Amino acid sequence: MMRRIVCPTLAGRVTSADEAAAHIRPGDSVGISGFTGAGYPKAVPAALAERMRTAHERGDEFRVQLWSGASTAPEVDGLLASAHGLSKRLPYNSDPTLRALINDGEVEYVDAHLSHSAQHMWFGFYGPLDVVVVEVTAILPNGLLVPSSSIGNNKTWLDRADKVILEVNSWQPREFEGFHDVYYGTRLPPHRAPIQLTSTMQRIGDPYLRVDPAKVVAVVQTDAPDRNTPLKPVDDNSRAMADLLVDFLRHEVRVGRMPPSLLPLQSGVGNVANAVMAGLVEAEFEPMTAYTEVLQDGLLDLLDSGKLTGVSATSFGLSPDGVRRFMDAIDSYKGRILLRSEEISNHPEVVRRLGVIAINGMIEADIYGNVNSTHVMGSAIMNGIGGSGDFARNAFLNFFVSPSTAKAGAISSIVPFVSHVDHTEHDVHVLVTEQGLADLRGLSPSARADRVIDHCAHPDFREPLRDYVARARAARPHAQHTPHLLDEAFSWHRRYLDTGSMA
Amino acid sequence: MMRRIVCPTLAGRVTSADEAAAHIRPGDSVGISGFTGAGYPKAVPAALAERMRTAHERGDEFRVQLWSGASTAPEVDGLLASAHGLSKRLPYNSDPTLRALINDGEVEYVDAHLSHSAQHMWFGFYGPLDVVVVEVTAILPNGLLVPSSSIGNNKTWLDRADKVILEVNSWQPREFEGFHDVYYGTRLPPHRAPIQLTSTMQRIGDPYLRVDPAKVVAVVQTDAPDRNTPLKPVDDNSRAMADLLVDFLRHEVRVGRMPPSLLPLQSGVGNVANAVMAGLVEAEFEPMTAYTEVLQDGLLDLLDSGKLTGVSATSFGLSPDGVRRFMDAIDSYKGRILLRSEEISNHPEVVRRLGVIAINGMIEADIYGNVNSTHVMGSAIMNGIGGSGDFARNAFLNFFVSPSTAKAGAISSIVPFVSHVDHTEHDVHVLVTEQGLADLRGLSPSARADRVIDHCAHPDFREPLRDYVARARAARPHAQHTPHLLDEAFSWHRRYLDTGSMA
Repeated sequence: MMRRIVCPTLAGRVTSADEAAAHIRPGDSVGISGFTGAGYPKAVPAALAERMRTAHERGDEFRVQLWSGASTAPEVDGLLASAHGLSKRLPYNSDPTLRALINDGEVEYVDAHLSHSAQHMWFGFYGPLDVVVVEVTAILPNGLLVPSSSIGNNKTWLDRADKVILEVNSWQPREFEGFHDVYYGTRLPPHRAPIQLTSTMQRIGDPYLRVDPAKVVAVVQTDAPDRNTPLKPVDDNSRAMADLLVDFLRHEVRVGRMPPSLLPLQSGVGNVANAVMAGLVEAEFEPMTAYTEVLQDGLLDLLDSGKLTGVSATSFGLSPDGVRRFMDAIDSYKGRILLRSEEISNHPEVVRRLGVIAINGMIEADIYGNVNSTHVMGSAIMNGIGGSGDFARNAFLNFFVSPSTAKAGAISSIVPFVSHVDHTEHDVHVLVTEQGLADLRGLSPSARADRVIDHCAHPDFREPLRDYVARARAARPHAQHTPHLLDEAFSWHRRYLDTGSMA
Repeated sequence: MMRRIVCPTLAGRVTSADEAAAHIRPGDSVGISGFTGAGYPKAVPAALAERMRTAHERGDEFRVQLWSGASTAPEVDGLLASAHGLSKRLPYNSDPTLRALINDGEVEYVDAHLSHSAQHMWFGFYGPLDVVVVEVTAILPNGLLVPSSSIGNNKTWLDRADKVILEVNSWQPREFEGFHDVYYGTRLPPHRAPIQLTSTMQRIGDPYLRVDPAKVVAVVQTDAPDRNTPLKPVDDNSRAMADLLVDFLRHEVRVGRMPPSLLPLQSGVGNVANAVMAGLVEAEFEPMTAYTEVLQDGLLDLLDSGKLTGVSATSFGLSPDGVRRFMDAIDSYKGRILLRSEEISNHPEVVRRLGVIAINGMIEADIYGNVNSTHVMGSAIMNGIGGSGDFARNAFLNFFVSPSTAKAGAISSIVPFVSHVDHTEHDVHVLVTEQGLADLRGLSPSARADRVIDHCAHPDFREPLRDYVARARAARPHAQHTPHLLDEAFSWHRRYLDTGSMA
């Protein structure tokens, strides 16, 4: 194990998770590694949670702000939430225990565009960063760090923190060396320069993370797997949406709006996105690339098929099966997978330049094309906006996908007015449900409404939606750009809260 | 006058506006120059409107799609709307006659981010562009075009159109040559390259627009002024908001979050923005620059004060006084004013790199920080999103400003839920009304609500807003991230529609 820490200075800082956690004080802002359940610290958070519990039992306050790349795992967010040790969380969470505390009003949650999170920290919008806990794969003789299964905001955390705790996880393959591209060219305005990245797999940085050894207060050795959530099998709805989407891409190629090898793919996390990737294995497009946030199993399939020549992401997000597959042939993926900082994987400049095809899930869309990605019935947070805004706004072409109903048909994903707006009508190109696909490009809001209802709404909800639009059009003859009945706009959500069904 | 057209080929195409307009057929997509009432064609639209009227009197259909840079003037949108000659309009309109037809449902209006409009045309999202009418200042011997008082989407229109009509306006000063920087480096993905612009006044293009002479079907000579709307005098509310904003910038410099010369300024069109610029004349920040869309009088004042060293914009938007001032000393402004294409003036890549300070007006904001820039009471369009999303999302720091009430106090600009979302909670940093300033950076939605109500809402509406939040918090204890009462969220707007007052 110690062969993973060959820097003499840092080898001398090896200690226990408990001792490392003692460097974290109540009220601290704590940065951690981790993105989509990959590359998060495995030991120190548990030790910290234990210290918090003990303090609370003594009657002392012990809460910290927790900043990450994106989602972590039960061993981080779950444990710290259970210990009631979090005061504020940013920029993303998907842990159910923590979600409940956010929705109970116990924890402040700042949901942010992931491309913004690092720079807002540098801009001083979040205050100082006291201590960070970053998982790495190895520490080289010169103190350079081989990153682990995600990069996320690690570069920023290591640069900005007062104190650094490193976790060296020997479960992560030593062969990770060379899979990363950490860009050290970011600056603060007015000193910023163009990011000279013009193709998916281009390297513009270093394979290593840097850290000032003087700031490293502890090094902890771990040997524990990432979260690696199993994927659900692809269901009929997902397959239907994937087919619609792939057919639409085919159409776009046929009419000359897209090259036969498409443009770099981005796909959000989840089963639908995964099904789309599966659909692309059977399709004729090649050679493709993916410029995305998370490398899920579907992208591994596409890589293995030879149709995808490379994936740029900021994190792995594989199932246990996917991990095995990747580990077994890791050397064959080198040069075909690159992990970057999330400020680069999601950077508006790069996403727009490359002309990414963005495919993201949604909770609901409204008839005028506004999309809700984050809130359940307007008030409760689900996860967060993540990178969906970074990609959708700057994409060449974007898709938002969801089954047309949820809760066994009680909820329509197409509503008169979304109960929270994450992507405005200006930013949404194509909506997809298992019912069909609505291409909203170049349409006025009123024309969009007809198309969304006809193509995407579930048959059970089509007539009520048409009725809403018809009555909205009749109600205010001189307000026909986006006709709404403001006293009914949220009545579907209200009905669901009152009766358990929107119908 | 003919000295303005020294290219022999194009001098041979000089004709009347009527004959030029005959090249425009029913059903055409027509691109026109023009941005904020500057640089729009002065003669052909009127001739076209006349042809439309005549056709309609004969019982023939004659409508076209109209694509522009942004807003034009009564002589374009107003006349074509009065002639009922428009079927679709994009990407921006502020003409009252056309607005009424959009809100009557007669004209389809596609409100778009201005940085998207050119590329969506190139991507093929809007279909083919049949004919364009572009105002220029002069035509050089080699056929190069000296642009006029705005650039907007002119480069794209000239490149993409099947047929080109040029208007050469001798009212525009011949000295405009050298005031423009037209970037010809844009490409379609996957062939895009970084835009190598790293400072406000850097030239990355040519001072001229290019056109294939073979496409030029007519050249029309005009001698007519731009719209040049007079500014209203700065009122107390505007001055109060400007003072708050300038004080806040002072605070940001003091705490080290911004350089003493600030960062490039962007200000939306209107009196508040103008008042802010006036406020900066008295402030200590220098040397400043502005990387913005429209050069209003306030920026001229700042240039004249010496505190602003340069303005990059895509259009002039001066008052008659401002025009006189500019014209009288035009040579002294050369090198201190640059007009660019709107895809560059508003480009996310450049806006984010330069770290722009974005200041834009709004119609209303809600307690959680969502902003409505476009719709009145949810359904009727006012103008459009323009560049506000391009700048706000990518800004170093953004402000949305509005008086706290409208219609003599009947309308609160701070509401429980905005009736249309143009800028989501993720994209809004600071709200400013004459009551105060709410810095929302790093706050959870619930914390934002308290701050917005305390700092920005008018005293008459503070208690009702607090009451809304208190009852929303009580209603769903486990939905506390963004507490809402969905059956009341739009009740303020509804009450205004029913009674003429939100109170």
